[in-house]
Amino acid sequence: MPLEIPEVVIDRLPTYYRLLTNLQARGVAVVSSQELGEALNVTPAQIRKDLSYFGRFGKQGRGYSVQRLTDELRTILGLDQRWRMVLIGVGRLGTAIASYRGFEPQGFDIVGVYDVNPEAVGTELGGELVVRNVADLARDLADDPVDIGIVAVPAGEAQAVVDVLVAAGIGAILSYAPTAAQVPAGVEVRQIDPVLSLQGMTYHLRRRDA
Amino acid sequence: MPLEIPEVVIDRLPTYYRLLTNLQARGVAVVSSQELGEALNVTPAQIRKDLSYFGRFGKQGRGYSVQRLTDELRTILGLDQRWRMVLIGVGRLGTAIASYRGFEPQGFDIVGVYDVNPEAVGTELGGELVVRNVADLARDLADDPVDIGIVAVPAGEAQAVVDVLVAAGIGAILSYAPTAAQVPAGVEVRQIDPVLSLQGMTYHLRRRDA
Repeated sequence: MPLEIPEVVIDRLPTYYRLLTNLQARGVAVVSSQELGEALNVTPAQIRKDLSYFGRFGKQGRGYSVQRLTDELRTILGLDQRWRMVLIGVGRLGTAIASYRGFEPQGFDIVGVYDVNPEAVGTELGGELVVRNVADLARDLADDPVDIGIVAVPAGEAQAVVDVLVAAGIGAILSYAPTAAQVPAGVEVRQIDPVLSLQGMTYHLRRRDA
Repeated sequence: MPLEIPEVVIDRLPTYYRLLTNLQARGVAVVSSQELGEALNVTPAQIRKDLSYFGRFGKQGRGYSVQRLTDELRTILGLDQRWRMVLIGVGRLGTAIASYRGFEPQGFDIVGVYDVNPEAVGTELGGELVVRNVADLARDLADDPVDIGIVAVPAGEAQAVVDVLVAAGIGAILSYAPTAAQVPAGVEVRQIDPVLSLQGMTYHLRRRDA
């Protein structure tokens, strides 16, 4: 495997992985770049190029082994282990995140939830996790490190929370705050922001209507 | 303006636009590619290259006019108008989306909400919108077209909803369903999926730990 895979390719791999696990669950043994491309709205050439970074999975004209490609992607993406996460912010959005059932089956566990609001601290969330005071976050992370931080606080409070997570050595942050968090090199941030997604599409709508 | 701007650049423009509007609100008149890069965790060279697609905004050594760049990006991204959206699915996630206050200030209006559940249909959401039956979606869109569809239904129901939206001529779909929707060329889809975002980061965490 080459050391440097382009970031745009890495960002597409989870989508490939999801499709492949679905194919596997349906008993599909072999899939072509054509079929993968049709299912994902990309060209077969793009599929072949992306997967070529990981060696010769496909035999010319015979397609990819679903099992082998799934296993390889699982390892490459680090999905053969469980990942521990803390969630900061339990407002309406944070509460929805805490109760989302899609994390656990994919190996992602929320093991701690935090808020700044004294009325929220000490309450139970989803019947399992007790909301802790965000003032204790740094100490808690020092005692019991986690892998990933989920930030669901208002924009004005996000950077302070990110700073605590970074200082605690956390290398991956999923931010729902509508602001670009600043982190040092080596820390990954992904922003979940529907407005940014919409604004990328209106560019195309404008051109389409013109 | 060149006809073909790379998709990865387009996807970064909304982030630039948000930062610039923040700078403008704070009264900043001129900003350098260095400052933009630091705020967004990208290199100044990347900033200059991305913005070069839109002509010579920056004067060598003097930085960009915040006002001029903001105005240009607003026009390029189609944010100088309002966009009408329908939301399909008013479960826990859809309800959170419908009550999200971040859309309207950015020019995005949810003008219709739909669900398949007979108990949800006819109820009021957020005190303004009455949930309609998804069976009426195609007819409603024919009578009163909208620009964007937001899909917040379970994975197994997503494609059917997407098909109705596409048949109605909608050119942009924001999907919260954890599945890759298939659409014809010319229809934009953006997927909001925290698990895919997490899986792109664990690739880096694995390499960092190694």
